[in-house]
Amino acid sequence: MADTDPLVIFTPSGKRGRFARGTPVLQAARSLGVDLDSVCGGRGICSKCQVSPGTGSFPKHGVTVSADALSPWNAVEERYKSKRGLIDGRRLGCQAQIESDVVIDVPATSQVHQQVVRKEAADVDIALDPVTRFYQVAVEEPDMHNPKGDFERLRDALAPHGISRVEASLPILASLQAVLREGDWTVTVALQQPDTDAPARILQIWPGAHDGTLYGVAFDVGSTTIACHLCDLKTGAVIASGGQMNPQIRFGEDLMSRVSYSMMNPGGHVEMTAAVRLAINELIVDVAGQAGITVEDVAEAVLVGNPVMHHLLLGIDPKELGWAPFALATSDALTLRPMELDLAMHAEGSVYILPCIAGHVGADAAAVALAEAPQDQEAMTLVVDVGTNAEILLGNKGKVLACSSPTGPAFEGAQISSGQRAAPGAIERVRIDPVTREPRFRVIGCEAWSDAPDFDFDVTGICGSGIIEAIAEMRIAGIIDTDGSIGSHDALATDRIIEDGRTWAYVLHRAEGKDPITVTQGDVRAIQLAKAALHAGAQLLMDKIGIDTVERVVLAGAFGAHISPLHALVLGMIPDCAVDQVTSAGNAAGTGARMALLNRGSRRTIEQVVRRVEKIETAVEEKFQEHFVSAIAVPHKTQPYPKLAEQVTLPSTPLATTEDGGGRRRRRRRP
Amino acid sequence: MADTDPLVIFTPSGKRGRFARGTPVLQAARSLGVDLDSVCGGRGICSKCQVSPGTGSFPKHGVTVSADALSPWNAVEERYKSKRGLIDGRRLGCQAQIESDVVIDVPATSQVHQQVVRKEAADVDIALDPVTRFYQVAVEEPDMHNPKGDFERLRDALAPHGISRVEASLPILASLQAVLREGDWTVTVALQQPDTDAPARILQIWPGAHDGTLYGVAFDVGSTTIACHLCDLKTGAVIASGGQMNPQIRFGEDLMSRVSYSMMNPGGHVEMTAAVRLAINELIVDVAGQAGITVEDVAEAVLVGNPVMHHLLLGIDPKELGWAPFALATSDALTLRPMELDLAMHAEGSVYILPCIAGHVGADAAAVALAEAPQDQEAMTLVVDVGTNAEILLGNKGKVLACSSPTGPAFEGAQISSGQRAAPGAIERVRIDPVTREPRFRVIGCEAWSDAPDFDFDVTGICGSGIIEAIAEMRIAGIIDTDGSIGSHDALATDRIIEDGRTWAYVLHRAEGKDPITVTQGDVRAIQLAKAALHAGAQLLMDKIGIDTVERVVLAGAFGAHISPLHALVLGMIPDCAVDQVTSAGNAAGTGARMALLNRGSRRTIEQVVRRVEKIETAVEEKFQEHFVSAIAVPHKTQPYPKLAEQVTLPSTPLATTEDGGGRRRRRRRP
Repeated sequence: MADTDPLVIFTPSGKRGRFARGTPVLQAARSLGVDLDSVCGGRGICSKCQVSPGTGSFPKHGVTVSADALSPWNAVEERYKSKRGLIDGRRLGCQAQIESDVVIDVPATSQVHQQVVRKEAADVDIALDPVTRFYQVAVEEPDMHNPKGDFERLRDALAPHGISRVEASLPILASLQAVLREGDWTVTVALQQPDTDAPARILQIWPGAHDGTLYGVAFDVGSTTIACHLCDLKTGAVIASGGQMNPQIRFGEDLMSRVSYSMMNPGGHVEMTAAVRLAINELIVDVAGQAGITVEDVAEAVLVGNPVMHHLLLGIDPKELGWAPFALATSDALTLRPMELDLAMHAEGSVYILPCIAGHVGADAAAVALAEAPQDQEAMTLVVDVGTNAEILLGNKGKVLACSSPTGPAFEGAQISSGQRAAPGAIERVRIDPVTREPRFRVIGCEAWSDAPDFDFDVTGICGSGIIEAIAEMRIAGIIDTDGSIGSHDALATDRIIEDGRTWAYVLHRAEGKDPITVTQGDVRAIQLAKAALHAGAQLLMDKIGIDTVERVVLAGAFGAHISPLHALVLGMIPDCAVDQVTSAGNAAGTGARMALLNRGSRRTIEQVVRRVEKIETAVEEKFQEHFVSAIAVPHKTQPYPKLAEQVTLPSTPLATTEDGGGRRRRRRRP
Repeated sequence: MADTDPLVIFTPSGKRGRFARGTPVLQAARSLGVDLDSVCGGRGICSKCQVSPGTGSFPKHGVTVSADALSPWNAVEERYKSKRGLIDGRRLGCQAQIESDVVIDVPATSQVHQQVVRKEAADVDIALDPVTRFYQVAVEEPDMHNPKGDFERLRDALAPHGISRVEASLPILASLQAVLREGDWTVTVALQQPDTDAPARILQIWPGAHDGTLYGVAFDVGSTTIACHLCDLKTGAVIASGGQMNPQIRFGEDLMSRVSYSMMNPGGHVEMTAAVRLAINELIVDVAGQAGITVEDVAEAVLVGNPVMHHLLLGIDPKELGWAPFALATSDALTLRPMELDLAMHAEGSVYILPCIAGHVGADAAAVALAEAPQDQEAMTLVVDVGTNAEILLGNKGKVLACSSPTGPAFEGAQISSGQRAAPGAIERVRIDPVTREPRFRVIGCEAWSDAPDFDFDVTGICGSGIIEAIAEMRIAGIIDTDGSIGSHDALATDRIIEDGRTWAYVLHRAEGKDPITVTQGDVRAIQLAKAALHAGAQLLMDKIGIDTVERVVLAGAFGAHISPLHALVLGMIPDCAVDQVTSAGNAAGTGARMALLNRGSRRTIEQVVRRVEKIETAVEEKFQEHFVSAIAVPHKTQPYPKLAEQVTLPSTPLATTEDGGGRRRRRRRP
């Protein structure tokens, strides 16, 4: 590999290397250890090695990719595409060869160890009151003496069903006469009516009786991952689920870096809009494929996301969200046609986007409010949706407050030395013996704990819930003190503590020939900052509402679903609360999106709730900074945890800090 | 020209010939005498010779045109297009060369003698109550403590203007934040609100104060001609007018032949839809060009047309209109987006299409009803819109009836031996001295009568109003009898009567080296059939409403505007009526379209009127056939014309009929 060879960067892994011109993408991926699948041995048959090459400027990666960075589309790819289909923009990694610097995205579906998108559909009962409904009607035949149009007579036939106003697009009108006659004046009509008093639109019309169904997709568009559930609109059942990384990651890991990208690159938001819409379409194709239906059977979509995702999805430059006063271009709910968002679904379908609560509290938080309904609770309830940004709701029947807190991606395993996203091989559960300080853990993809005799799994890193448990367990075991400093090798007298530059690290796992998997002082600090931001947001809302303690805590979000309540309390992520009152809501945003998909009344509910929610902007609240600083300790000092203390006894004194209190290792000779 | 040379057919003239491969279109046109302009001498500079080549099957012409019937698009055309613009599908006649059989349309704008589209905007007062309105508002600045979106605050600023619901497309939402900030929170908004209680849509938004205007187009889409008026939406003034032949003529001269074309050629309606939409776009480009604005300044369109035009415009196969029960696909008024009809106008604009009254009584008749308002009259009023099909309304405040009558194209000069469309050189006024039987006439394009000493004009044929007057004058002068037979040469003793096969013809004009311009027996018969259809329709409605005479007659339509009331009565086109109660409404359909364009209340008015109008289907009324047969005579026998008789004394006995009474010339030797 010469310096003049083309540079290849794979996303989302970020792995990069230089390869001779003509090197197939699959070969480059393999030599870098990039997780790119292939089953057929590179013969262009299996299509497992599909990749999405990018073009244009990638300032984050310092490269500009020309349109001919890969060899031209070849006959093998053409044959595959014509026979089996291939999403536009995709190449086969075994066929496309590297010609110049290129950024290549490996879609989730092309990874051997596919992303475990931990946004399972929560098992909640949703009352069906769908926007899309089916009616079989007998239409009066035309009569010269009553020269109403066929459409107007169809409308008359629907009136006894309580549908007074009906609209139809020109393509529907153009098909109507043939369908009515083919069905001998009996037809089945699928109507979309967003509200009982709103006009209904004809979605589709079939001659005679038609007992098929149509489908809807509920999307939770996160900064990091996009999750999708396909539902049968007649039964409400979740038929298929899918998820993939948000390809906008290549423009910036977190929200603010994407806003910056838009600020720095005029029109940059257009690229990000295209990227997220493509990913959404890939997921629609994916779940439709799982269900054995076509994308044209997908008649409805509901989308939720934070304000930046919301704006980018709509094609709106999010730059105003990057500075005070964080003005949203639009905050209300939107009902759109698929074409307006370039969505691959039923051309006559509809798309509903939940309202945003505020400039930092988006449609995802609205979906959480819909799913968890703090506004309907007697108990003072704190709902935290833990993602790259945390959305926080606090309230009860009387009043609900909302804010957003910039926790950053540490909770998702990013910016953690051994961190990784939740995928097979990632440590997700940790226990540390307080006496021996020996750890045991469980990894995703394996039921057995690591101390079981039959445990034999390739441990690859720590995911978000794993790092929370590890640090909380380290606190319980006295490995870190209230300041978050890891005790020294000497003080703790265990070979689990090793040097890590000028600080210490705790070894969770050792495997021959591999770097140990550790929790470093830097990791602890990153988690401390993240949890302090989360805690400070909750505290700010508690101040505003005038309470000292909350009665219930609901952990929502993909990651929230996997957090152990006890460990979250030990770490001080959330305010003190009885452990049994800390529950997980699973992917509440996704649940809220499904509710809006399947129950049109819930759309009106959330539109009204959002108007009543009182919004708090953390970025301009001085108290937020104070709370943040106070909340850095583990658990923090100013806010005692009496309820937690009833269940867990934490070492109250520093065990092993060095005199600077910062966990910095004393300069000394190696023992 | 060899038989194997490509066949070239020019429309609308129908002129055809064979030319060697490589012959430029302009040269072929010139050698056939086709009216195709050119100023620059074929250098591709003036673009006057633009033509629209067709492709596909032209059963009417017996040719199929391949996609490469003309030489490929060349550099001269490309240069012209890039510099000056050229409508898609257009070629430069001087550049495109004939390669195989081809049908080439000469658009009106490329004719040296441009079609005189006699659809001038009638000078009527229309109360302004436009759909598109302008508001200058100050928008509240964003505030973190009141996190409404910018759009929602703009909406709040519009509320004091009585606008409670506002909608905006994604492109408008995407532009909103920059415009609000550029205007320092003052903006001018153009809203489209079809009704005071309907939601308003943002059409356009400008920073600060903007005192410009926007425009609307009112279209009367006739079977033969399409007329268009461009209006200033702030003042209501007609800024420019345009007209051209309906290019669908190449698929069939009259409505039923176009319906047949659709029946015989699956998907044939798609070609006709494309043709009419292209012509509409050409006219928008034309009137916008006249007014010095761009098509993006055209924010609204209103379209009227008969049911077949209505359906083809909408992209709906009109075949159901070709047989009983003549079922319309849709009869109600439609409000559409320009994109739905592929119209070249403001992307956020709107298009309103008036309702149809019945399967044979279209949105053009609704527009006439709107303009002439028989439903508001005390007097029993007959409104006839004379075109290729005649729409007939009869009624007063009590009740209005409507029907359509298939007059055919004779009234427009088609199917007349010397007939031509209304264009310079066409005879439009005729007087015949009852004693000498010598004619004098006036032609379009010349103020002087033909017997004036300074008359010197190239007389090319007779247009619709000319043939009506000629035949009526022939009746007054005793040249034809009540049966419509032209008297013999001998009986009339004038050299104006000449032999024409086995019948006689009357010579209106002779010019050296040219065929004389005559009215033949066939012409008289054609006009008799047309006027009988019109009269029978009116009589049918009179029967239905139970009256013997009407109090007022309004002649509407492009052609109706030019008919002499007296001559129409003499001919028996319309029922007996005092001559001074027969008035011309000019292009009433166009006026109705302009009213709907400029006054949103009038849209609701016509939507309600149309529901109340009682529709009569002539095609299934036995009485219609009876009336038709009775009405063939000139003036017809069963229905005396006492009011007319007070003003004109018609010869009461046949003057010159032969024994068979049919105007057939006796077989005899030439004198």
